[in-house]
Amino acid sequence: MKTRITEMLGIRYPIIQGGMMWVGRAELAAAVSNAGGLGIITALTQPTPEALSAEIDRCRALTDKPFGVNLTLLPSINPPPYEAYLDAVIAAGVPVLETAGNNPREFIAKARAAGIKVIHKCVAVRHALSAERNGVDAVSIDGFECAGHPGEEDVPGLVLIPAAVRRLSIPVIASGGIADGRGLAAALALGAEGVNMGTRFCATLEAPIHPAIKQALVSADERDTRLIFRTLRNTARVLRNAISEEVVSLERREGGAAFEELRPLVAGVRGRAALESGAVDDGIITAGQCVGLIDDVPSCAELLERMVAEAKDHLQASLARFTG
Amino acid sequence: MKTRITEMLGIRYPIIQGGMMWVGRAELAAAVSNAGGLGIITALTQPTPEALSAEIDRCRALTDKPFGVNLTLLPSINPPPYEAYLDAVIAAGVPVLETAGNNPREFIAKARAAGIKVIHKCVAVRHALSAERNGVDAVSIDGFECAGHPGEEDVPGLVLIPAAVRRLSIPVIASGGIADGRGLAAALALGAEGVNMGTRFCATLEAPIHPAIKQALVSADERDTRLIFRTLRNTARVLRNAISEEVVSLERREGGAAFEELRPLVAGVRGRAALESGAVDDGIITAGQCVGLIDDVPSCAELLERMVAEAKDHLQASLARFTG
Repeated sequence: MKTRITEMLGIRYPIIQGGMMWVGRAELAAAVSNAGGLGIITALTQPTPEALSAEIDRCRALTDKPFGVNLTLLPSINPPPYEAYLDAVIAAGVPVLETAGNNPREFIAKARAAGIKVIHKCVAVRHALSAERNGVDAVSIDGFECAGHPGEEDVPGLVLIPAAVRRLSIPVIASGGIADGRGLAAALALGAEGVNMGTRFCATLEAPIHPAIKQALVSADERDTRLIFRTLRNTARVLRNAISEEVVSLERREGGAAFEELRPLVAGVRGRAALESGAVDDGIITAGQCVGLIDDVPSCAELLERMVAEAKDHLQASLARFTG
Repeated sequence: MKTRITEMLGIRYPIIQGGMMWVGRAELAAAVSNAGGLGIITALTQPTPEALSAEIDRCRALTDKPFGVNLTLLPSINPPPYEAYLDAVIAAGVPVLETAGNNPREFIAKARAAGIKVIHKCVAVRHALSAERNGVDAVSIDGFECAGHPGEEDVPGLVLIPAAVRRLSIPVIASGGIADGRGLAAALALGAEGVNMGTRFCATLEAPIHPAIKQALVSADERDTRLIFRTLRNTARVLRNAISEEVVSLERREGGAAFEELRPLVAGVRGRAALESGAVDDGIITAGQCVGLIDDVPSCAELLERMVAEAKDHLQASLARFTG
């Protein structure tokens, strides 16, 4: 395939793996890149910049294709050593950096000066425009459907993607709600030049997640996610389970006043307990509404080949409607 | 164009005007039908079944193309004479009935026995399946983006449409979030065989709405809608204005306890004050998130020709991505 994203990143298909805490490790990133997409290692899943360097080396041993690193910059009292993580990415010669959260101009400039392509992930058109002004190479825009942090404005991809495409000059990657060939076809029709998928890649053979959690994603339907932490203005979309239901009730009952009670659960959102144990109620599991479109646990290669073939078929069939 | 929807309804383009209170009158319905889509007269905008018969006659004088009637059935202490409205539709030989709200089997059976095609509008896959079992000819599925009543499950079209298409045998019409050629192209790619548009048709020359309100829709961006009446479990998406902001604050402050205070505003949601006066803050104005994609006030004919041409172009361009 050919879009500005495939050209820019040197990949076969414009399908990018989302930067996912605990899941974005070398095995999955290499599998996605080997399948023709762009795999992404999540920097902060690694405890230190040195560990990130080792993970990058491990990924490189598993694939000779390009892959990227996600670095999510959040305001924090004790922030991780972001600069040192970036230095590790630069030193390793990783060709693509996905930033999320803040979007500091110097950070982007430093990465780009090292020849790295920078994709900034955001949830609003005005943030995408600001990232464009700061010099990023592409933006990945998360609609309301997405797993993780959709922001507080609740604009889904069907409106958000074309709204962004109309106003930006750099290429747009559609993120959120996409899990199959229909989603890829629709994203392209909306003007995106690539798609970003997180939840769908969690339900692949290569994802480093307990098989029982992959099955939970297969079983879930489109109504099986919950928005939590809205009262903290830090909304996250997660899989419905005992913990997320508890958080939802607590927030409904007490509003923002539940902050102290929520604090241990806020820590829990980053927990990897359920992903490792396979017991769905052991922790918060990040998932998007496209869980309702996930019916199997294929390899990444099988998934991408199928998606691309189906997207092409659906576009051809749609175009055939116009000659009737 | 050719889909099961164009064939079933005998229309040129699979573009259906939403059933809109106060707006769905003969002028607009005839303009949409003359433009090659399916215009819809809103039954309950007419004070009596007799007035509906007269409105149907008026529409027929303005177009020789097929048009439909929307009849929204809601539980009510003093319900309108639904049966008599249906009889008016049958007696007038209107070929298409759009039902919304409840979905009574006998109602559908009576319409279909009279040779009328029945499209049921709903917001969830299980309601669409139930309507299919009850014998409707097609379903129109409203995503979270939509104007008016999106339901309480908040699943946007990018996920809801393919989820519905996978499970239904009858054709699916995508509703909510669609205002341009990209939206039509994406809906087809997602498996829909037609689109339903409300907000977009409000900003056309023929819509019986004050020009200042049309301009307000043009000026609004994708963040300029609000969800109101969520605390009553009767969520409605409306344009942001002084009244909707007041309702949102009231609900945030008092929750469901605000019911008595909300009651006059609930009545107001059906008000036509702003639509007629042109003063945006005079009443609640129903609008979907696709207001962010509306930049002009064309005629219905201009709108449909442009949408169809652009949708085809976007599908061709998307398909060309696969030969790179």
